[in-house]
Amino acid sequence: MLTRVVVAPSGFKESLSAQAAADAIADGVRRVLPDVVIDRIPLVDGGEGTAAALAAATGGRLVALPATGPVGEPVGTHFALLGSRDRDTAVVEMAAVAGLSLVPRALRDPGATTTYGVGELIRAALDTGVRRILVGCGDSGTSDGGAGALQALGMRLLDADGRELPRGGRELTRLSRVDARGLDPRLREVELLVACNPYNVLCGVRGVARVFGPQKGATPAQVEELSAGLENWAKVLTRDLAITRTDLRYGDGTGASGGLGAGLAALGARLLPRFEVLLAHLDLDARLARADLVVTAEGAMDHQTPRGKVPAEVARRAKLSGRPVLALAGTLGEGAHNVPGVDAFSGILPAPMALTEALVRASELLTDATERALRMILLGARLPAHAEVSGTQRPSSVR
Amino acid sequence: MLTRVVVAPSGFKESLSAQAAADAIADGVRRVLPDVVIDRIPLVDGGEGTAAALAAATGGRLVALPATGPVGEPVGTHFALLGSRDRDTAVVEMAAVAGLSLVPRALRDPGATTTYGVGELIRAALDTGVRRILVGCGDSGTSDGGAGALQALGMRLLDADGRELPRGGRELTRLSRVDARGLDPRLREVELLVACNPYNVLCGVRGVARVFGPQKGATPAQVEELSAGLENWAKVLTRDLAITRTDLRYGDGTGASGGLGAGLAALGARLLPRFEVLLAHLDLDARLARADLVVTAEGAMDHQTPRGKVPAEVARRAKLSGRPVLALAGTLGEGAHNVPGVDAFSGILPAPMALTEALVRASELLTDATERALRMILLGARLPAHAEVSGTQRPSSVR
Repeated sequence: MLTRVVVAPSGFKESLSAQAAADAIADGVRRVLPDVVIDRIPLVDGGEGTAAALAAATGGRLVALPATGPVGEPVGTHFALLGSRDRDTAVVEMAAVAGLSLVPRALRDPGATTTYGVGELIRAALDTGVRRILVGCGDSGTSDGGAGALQALGMRLLDADGRELPRGGRELTRLSRVDARGLDPRLREVELLVACNPYNVLCGVRGVARVFGPQKGATPAQVEELSAGLENWAKVLTRDLAITRTDLRYGDGTGASGGLGAGLAALGARLLPRFEVLLAHLDLDARLARADLVVTAEGAMDHQTPRGKVPAEVARRAKLSGRPVLALAGTLGEGAHNVPGVDAFSGILPAPMALTEALVRASELLTDATERALRMILLGARLPAHAEVSGTQRPSSVR
Repeated sequence: MLTRVVVAPSGFKESLSAQAAADAIADGVRRVLPDVVIDRIPLVDGGEGTAAALAAATGGRLVALPATGPVGEPVGTHFALLGSRDRDTAVVEMAAVAGLSLVPRALRDPGATTTYGVGELIRAALDTGVRRILVGCGDSGTSDGGAGALQALGMRLLDADGRELPRGGRELTRLSRVDARGLDPRLREVELLVACNPYNVLCGVRGVARVFGPQKGATPAQVEELSAGLENWAKVLTRDLAITRTDLRYGDGTGASGGLGAGLAALGARLLPRFEVLLAHLDLDARLARADLVVTAEGAMDHQTPRGKVPAEVARRAKLSGRPVLALAGTLGEGAHNVPGVDAFSGILPAPMALTEALVRASELLTDATERALRMILLGARLPAHAEVSGTQRPSSVR
């Protein structure tokens, strides 16, 4: 019986927040099934909107404050204090103080941008007395290995002459040693967690400078300079802090947010797969298990979706309890038909249309497309009861 | 059980014939339900493709021949001889010899174009000895009231001085009398049927010259000249042929194909609603009644669809036997959600895209969209069996 529908979309880049997407889908469901219970779970991946979404989901709140932005200018930012059973947890969203959208296009120099503000937010979170700080990675505009964050937390980065380094990833090639004696002592009293994409590593040919440097504005020469700097950064931290149990260069997630993962790992933070840690706060598995139908969505669904995007994660988890999954997307690309766990999917466009128009009308288009999809599902539900025989046997044969 | 799917689309204007649309949809159904029986019924409305589609559907054949085109040039054309139980029927498609697509854009002068070729095709059909001739109207490029067709069949159109009129609708204002003594005598031996849109009438403010003249290239002055000519044409025919039982001016379908309906009615032809006569040859109702699911489609679905377009007719007939109907369209416009009998519908576009690209890729897009729609329907079919309770009660509340 369709009595409970879980609506669990990600945001649509450049048009809808996850919350707005969830609302749009819920409106479409409501048109067809006015009495159904709709459980909205806007999903985040650690990047933009993560702090606000987790605060909203747990009944917590956002704390607003100024801090240092990625290009050194003060910016208005925030962190979250979660509510209910996560009352002792703060969420610091790196994108809210060092995100790419805070870097003016003309100033996109990934050798200069800094995570200094992330350290300031962590200090502000420490001031509130929480026992756990969760740092969300994603959508970063920096490539400094988290050096700025550690500086803000009291670490000194010194060159061969014992002079403190200026901020920015390009300075790290000149790093000679670090002095951790001034680190905020409260860091030892809290649990520091980092929600990151575990596929991102700090060094090597798949390292963060090479993979993400160009889209942050790095030239090929800058990519090599940043790579060398991050190599040196990992080497010096490992040596001077006597790190033995963590591989700062190739450990899972060390490359998250321009290497912020590695910097925080050097302080003892645990780098966790983002969905594991984020979705636990949303009680996602239990809520999916109660759904008669799960609707997920993202801006573009394609061959990248199975590699850690929201619809794939939702579908995977929904299948743990055997729930049917419908996925909607603004754009369906190659591979959209092949996302494990997604039973059916649809684009949202009613007619030939330019991307710019689709972005502006995304909410309305998503609502209408949801209505159409639900009508198709209900058409199927009204087929005579022995209707499933042709369909169920061969999900694997579906192209 | 989904064991038999009827695929009954119209063509998509400027991109897919009805046959190509049916094939594309069938391919999409096959991807999801490889073993289902697919019954393809490409639908036509009397216009372009009608003769070929009816020949194919009945196992008949096309007879190719040259005839006079709408601007007086010879064109290669054809008529159909139907097969199986319709063996004694020929189909003359007026669009194949006097259609708008045969009028070069530079020569679009509706006062000059002629249906002379239609009369030639009817003669050629008479030569085969059939007992019934069905004339399909639609997509015409003429506005001569069928005068040309009657000339080709032996009628003389005379001015006040007893001189024969040249071809073209604009000459009809000068018509003084007709001389039917030379009419092909075999016309009395055959049943002449015309498949037409009954909403089209010859005269008055909703008359064919006013409604369709402008899109055939008529200026406002030409529209008035054509209107006056068609008025006179109806008056003279009614008087000289002593027509008493048919209203050539306002009878249903008299305005079909630039007034060809009226001209043929003057010869005793019966003007029939197009779907009644065309779909009977396709055995549509019986085939719909055996379907577990009916898929229909057209290029654009909107508020005009319920006014006699193919998907609305298919849905209406499918509902006579309670069959579920899915409709697909290249473009969904205002009102697409409100076509009686359509249970669910979808656009076919996977991503933002210009109309020109969508037209070129229509077949592939339609196949993919069919696959997605079928997957949604099967998702619904796999819901627990009591799933229908929320859905079935309130089709009328669906926006």
